[in-house]
Amino acid sequence: QRIPNTCKAAVLTDIQKIEVKEFPIPTISEDEILVKVEGCGVCGTDLHEYKGDPFNLIPVVLGHEGTGEIVKLGKNVKIDSAGKPVKIGDKIVTSVINKAPEDAAAVDPSKSNLLEDTNVYGLLPDDEYHLNGWFGEYIVLRKNSTFFQVNDMNLNQRLLIEPAAVVIHAVERAKTTGLLKFNSTALVQGCGPIGLLLIAVLKTMGVLNIIAIDGDDQRLAMAKGLGATKILNFKNYRSTEELISAVKEITTGKGCDFAFQCTGVPQAASNIWKFVKRGGGLCEVGFFVDNGDCTINPHWDICQKEITVVGSWIYTIQDYPTTFDFLKRANEIGLPVEELITHRFSLEELNEAMEVNMRLEGIKVAYVNNR
Amino acid sequence: QRIPNTCKAAVLTDIQKIEVKEFPIPTISEDEILVKVEGCGVCGTDLHEYKGDPFNLIPVVLGHEGTGEIVKLGKNVKIDSAGKPVKIGDKIVTSVINKAPEDAAAVDPSKSNLLEDTNVYGLLPDDEYHLNGWFGEYIVLRKNSTFFQVNDMNLNQRLLIEPAAVVIHAVERAKTTGLLKFNSTALVQGCGPIGLLLIAVLKTMGVLNIIAIDGDDQRLAMAKGLGATKILNFKNYRSTEELISAVKEITTGKGCDFAFQCTGVPQAASNIWKFVKRGGGLCEVGFFVDNGDCTINPHWDICQKEITVVGSWIYTIQDYPTTFDFLKRANEIGLPVEELITHRFSLEELNEAMEVNMRLEGIKVAYVNNR
Amino acid sequence: QRIPNTCKAAVLTDIQKIEVKEFPIPTISEDEILVKVEGCGVCGTDLHEYKGDPFNLIPVVLGHEGTGEIVKLGKNVKIDSAGKPVKIGDKIVTSVINKAPEDAAAVDPSKSNLLEDTNVYGLLPDDEYHLNGWFGEYIVLRKNSTFFQVNDMNLNQRLLIEPAAVVIHAVERAKTTGLLKFNSTALVQGCGPIGLLLIAVLKTMGVLNIIAIDGDDQRLAMAKGLGATKILNFKNYRSTEELISAVKEITTGKGCDFAFQCTGVPQAASNIWKFVKRGGGLCEVGFFVDNGDCTINPHWDICQKEITVVGSWIYTIQDYPTTFDFLKRANEIGLPVEELITHRFSLEELNEAMEVNMRLEGIKVAYVNNR
Amino acid sequence: QRIPNTCKAAVLTDIQKIEVKEFPIPTISEDEILVKVEGCGVCGTDLHEYKGDPFNLIPVVLGHEGTGEIVKLGKNVKIDSAGKPVKIGDKIVTSVINKAPEDAAAVDPSKSNLLEDTNVYGLLPDDEYHLNGWFGEYIVLRKNSTFFQVNDMNLNQRLLIEPAAVVIHAVERAKTTGLLKFNSTALVQGCGPIGLLLIAVLKTMGVLNIIAIDGDDQRLAMAKGLGATKILNFKNYRSTEELISAVKEITTGKGCDFAFQCTGVPQAASNIWKFVKRGGGLCEVGFFVDNGDCTINPHWDICQKEITVVGSWIYTIQDYPTTFDFLKRANEIGLPVEELITHRFSLEELNEAMEVNMRLEGIKVAYVNNR
Ligand SMILES: [Zn+2]
Ligand SMILES: [Zn+2]
Ligand SMILES: [Zn+2]
Ligand SMILES: [Zn+2]
Ligand SMILES: [Zn+2]
Ligand SMILES: [Zn+2]
Ligand SMILES: [Zn+2]
Ligand SMILES: [Zn+2]
Repeated sequence: QRIPNTCKAAVLTDIQKIEVKEFPIPTISEDEILVKVEGCGVCGTDLHEYKGDPFNLIPVVLGHEGTGEIVKLGKNVKIDSAGKPVKIGDKIVTSVINKAPEDAAAVDPSKSNLLEDTNVYGLLPDDEYHLNGWFGEYIVLRKNSTFFQVNDMNLNQRLLIEPAAVVIHAVERAKTTGLLKFNSTALVQGCGPIGLLLIAVLKTMGVLNIIAIDGDDQRLAMAKGLGATKILNFKNYRSTEELISAVKEITTGKGCDFAFQCTGVPQAASNIWKFVKRGGGLCEVGFFVDNGDCTINPHWDICQKEITVVGSWIYTIQDYPTTFDFLKRANEIGLPVEELITHRFSLEELNEAMEVNMRLEGIKVAYVNNR
Repeated sequence: QRIPNTCKAAVLTDIQKIEVKEFPIPTISEDEILVKVEGCGVCGTDLHEYKGDPFNLIPVVLGHEGTGEIVKLGKNVKIDSAGKPVKIGDKIVTSVINKAPEDAAAVDPSKSNLLEDTNVYGLLPDDEYHLNGWFGEYIVLRKNSTFFQVNDMNLNQRLLIEPAAVVIHAVERAKTTGLLKFNSTALVQGCGPIGLLLIAVLKTMGVLNIIAIDGDDQRLAMAKGLGATKILNFKNYRSTEELISAVKEITTGKGCDFAFQCTGVPQAASNIWKFVKRGGGLCEVGFFVDNGDCTINPHWDICQKEITVVGSWIYTIQDYPTTFDFLKRANEIGLPVEELITHRFSLEELNEAMEVNMRLEGIKVAYVNNR
Repeated sequence: QRIPNTCKAAVLTDIQKIEVKEFPIPTISEDEILVKVEGCGVCGTDLHEYKGDPFNLIPVVLGHEGTGEIVKLGKNVKIDSAGKPVKIGDKIVTSVINKAPEDAAAVDPSKSNLLEDTNVYGLLPDDEYHLNGWFGEYIVLRKNSTFFQVNDMNLNQRLLIEPAAVVIHAVERAKTTGLLKFNSTALVQGCGPIGLLLIAVLKTMGVLNIIAIDGDDQRLAMAKGLGATKILNFKNYRSTEELISAVKEITTGKGCDFAFQCTGVPQAASNIWKFVKRGGGLCEVGFFVDNGDCTINPHWDICQKEITVVGSWIYTIQDYPTTFDFLKRANEIGLPVEELITHRFSLEELNEAMEVNMRLEGIKVAYVNNR
Repeated sequence: QRIPNTCKAAVLTDIQKIEVKEFPIPTISEDEILVKVEGCGVCGTDLHEYKGDPFNLIPVVLGHEGTGEIVKLGKNVKIDSAGKPVKIGDKIVTSVINKAPEDAAAVDPSKSNLLEDTNVYGLLPDDEYHLNGWFGEYIVLRKNSTFFQVNDMNLNQRLLIEPAAVVIHAVERAKTTGLLKFNSTALVQGCGPIGLLLIAVLKTMGVLNIIAIDGDDQRLAMAKGLGATKILNFKNYRSTEELISAVKEITTGKGCDFAFQCTGVPQAASNIWKFVKRGGGLCEVGFFVDNGDCTINPHWDICQKEITVVGSWIYTIQDYPTTFDFLKRANEIGLPVEELITHRFSLEELNEAMEVNMRLEGIKVAYVNNR
């Protein structure tokens, strides 16, 4: 495969303005990797950047849910971050870039996801390389990056790895409560990419009873396809009380064993507590940005219920191999996970991709490089 | 010891009206126990009953934090609920009366505290025995009661067993998070009997750093005596933000590892989340009645913080032996736990005891039988 | 359905001698249930009784892995042990009979499987009812029995519930170590009914990599069908060291994450430790009777490996609903669990059933009532 | 404080031969620290080196349980490994040197103690610095070392940090089983430095009932002083069975809740399983070298007992701050932990120190620098 001298990348040059620019492909060092991009999912964070650049990165090449093929490999790079050997031609994805903390002894090493200095390709400041995000034809991985060889997955699966890792992390958090068994009733509120992937993870774990809640019948139909055994469109209920009653009815009057909150809507963050049975648990996995406060009742929601609640924040690199095997096993048992990618756009169409995402059409929108 | 034919008991006969009445001491059956009361703590629940009879029990003999001496023993009663042999003259306390649930296989057996039909002496309806609560000179324990021989504790310690069991249960819940170590910083908000006992439990466990928060300097002084290493009077801070800053300052800018919420004030239930570090935990142990809603922020308080939250609801009978050994060990290391009992009243003074409690004077108010 | 006056039952009347006898069908009380037997698996314990009557029960009607149909129902029996309503015509299974311990506060309530007084139908002493085991045409369930309505499972599935509960309990014990994830490598040593069901449970949980070890190629083929990704016949290795090397080779030189020991052979109980990686775990689920000592190395097997080991002993009634949903989910994803029942015998052929079992032919041998 | 040009260090130059040699004190770089040694405990590993150099390090400056004062500080060194600021004059200890693993995603980050490349000062090969162990007057800490400022502890406490960290790690492993409460009965077999420190940790955690087993009455007396409530000299029992009976007698016939195995004797590693109750747990913390195999019974010791076993291997750097606060709290409650240091030797007497250690005299033998 011949590597050209220059390539294109989509640069966010202003609020709501992505321009395709041409950059020279840099010579890579002995510790670097040049990757030809095959595609990259569009994330809510990308949309935030597109709408207002909260991280103050403009001009920036976005895209962190990407995958591609190694076309050039520095000679010091022999294995990926899980210890697998790598070579030219391998398909890869990237994960977070953590720095070892200086006060390591004061830090829980299993919580590297909570380190303040974490970063990812696709949210890096511009530099002389320019090819720092997945929304381009090529990307350059620098020394000490984390990346994984994923040759045994197809493009659709690889495009879903990053959001699936978010979900795997949440489910591992939930598992620490001991409340997830074959006969547990799990409830998933919010059927966007995160909620739908969560349903697929629970189903792949063998959880038999899964209640899905959303306001969109198409998303609920997809929830059913991925394993939900009951679907509730909250728009069919005149009040929160009625919705709670519906959940109780399904669960012999008690409420669910464990609930996952996967929307960013404050009202949903209030309601989720009411769906849980006494002695049950709940995981908050929807509020990756501050969408405002919500109201809870300390007596009924926490104390009298003796609930166990776990927050979940992105993922660690250890969650990646777990994610790969989830995607493989989900495929083996016939869950249509790949159908979550509902829209595909070229580099030149990325403004449109953002607009589609903003209008909440489809589930997962992705950039796919057809060249 | 001669047993009289009749004895006195304090009967709540109307809202805010306790009258001492004389009752015949019943003949006990082969499965029953007659106990001469030595004393009984006054609980928040007693106060609720006194103020408004929410459980609709009037006329009722209240008092569930009691202790006394066995004076008559049915011949079938050979051991207490922990398997210890019992005999006339033994000092005892009672605990919850759980019924085995009919749907046992659908219930977590380690969560008997969440069974709906749980009851205690002191909150039972009146019947032909009348001596159903600890606010009397004698009490009759019926078949299938749970009770414990506690000869190796003095009266003060025994009067504190029931509230201490509430705290032991909360700390066992907290321990499931793995966040309590010698070098953890624990925070206790609210220095009533529950909060102060909690500080004593943490200190007895060897937790070195304990922050106590309250609005009363005397209670905070007691917190210090029981092991708190930092005390904060929230009245010294002009805003919640300032109070949070003070906590952060003590904790190298991060917040505490684990926080216990021991007040029934909604604002406190909101604030507690802000004191906790990323990756930390929190236990709600203050809202045993519905004192209203509170506001939290799902992004900052749960998701980004990746917090673990445990509610705690009363106790199981398994918590009782743990409580006994806490009280003994606290005594061995010189913690002044018995000083929590600040006021003592006779049977005839129980209206006054209630009034003192209502005015939030002292810490633990107790009925003591001097006859 | 007409209920006859008498019915047949297989009585173990002497060592290695089962005789079919006729008994009157008793009138049942208001708390009892009369069940027409459909079938019952033959367990290792039945074989022990057949070979030597270690429990000193002769004459006894054996059979505790049974299932059948309610034909008569005492009017006080309204729900099963999980709270489901029951009626004539329902299909049921029975589980353990636990008595509430008198020293309840000294006992971990989640470990009812370790109570000394546990019993099951099929291992009860003979009495005036006689119909105390499932190896008959009818069985009478007494007051306070535990039983479950399982109408939504076919006969094959229902015959596997009891051994599957053993396995579910073991996997719940294993889950407490946090070592079972989609990308874990689990190893199962011993492919009898327990080991094979264990493989099916792990696969249903989504564990992608499962190594099965046995000495019989047919059992290993069945292991593969139920989800094992690697099968090792230990007879193909000249030494334990070679077998260990083979396991290490599959696991990038490290050993497996978690190993399940499912045979009763001491040498296997020694070897299992060697298969586990540093930081991994192991569950002993094979030694339900004392088959002798084994040798381990405290330095290499426990300390330096920092292993976590969990024993597993039968099951609690809470494991039953989990087992039901495992069997349903396994069926949904196409695992051929029902094929574990390889031999079926009538009441009159039970001596032969025992002999087949003794010769280790097939996997699960069952009595099936064709009348 | 004037720093000399040369200093002395004890060099193991041959099997059982330590010679004091003079070395130039090197100029330190901007990332290094020069420490004046105050003292260093003698460890079993030192003894192994002394007796046979199993790590093939001769010539080597041994000593890894050391502490001293910073006398020179490279300008890039601003904080210790827990984030505390450091300056000349600070008292410090060192801990393990871990390298970040290349296959990080395949490794449990909370198990850095199991990484293959871990090392410590005192077991490093000789190089041009020579001052690589604590058995000298000065030691040079290189870039990326882990070390801790411990100004708030006296010399005796600081000399015990390293073995105490071993014990803290073991107890944290044990805590994951949920079996350690105020009313648990813990058993500690082996009252050398590790066993005795373990007793002190359990007592500082508030565990009320601690059984100590050893063959030496003086060590058992020390065990009592540190918190053991029952002491058993195994030499007073004619057989293992009698010893087991004695443990059962103390524990109402059941066995202890949790047992810690702190000797390197195979027979002890066999016996420890028998002391544990059904449903209890055990931690192996004694076999840091291979002292041979032991025999267990898979049925009685693991399966029927449903035991939970945790191995424990050295410590992580996160265990160090926990250890510091254990030592402070133990001191606050009056446990005579410092008395564990029974023998002190100068640099010139280190051969004698080794001989004393070999003869198992005293508990902890230490080098103390009096110059
Ligand atoms: Zn994102
Ligand atoms: Zn994403
Ligand atoms: Zn109360
Ligand atoms: Zn109370
Ligand atoms: Zn059986
Ligand atoms: Zn069986
Ligand atoms: Zn050492
Ligand atoms: Zn050491």
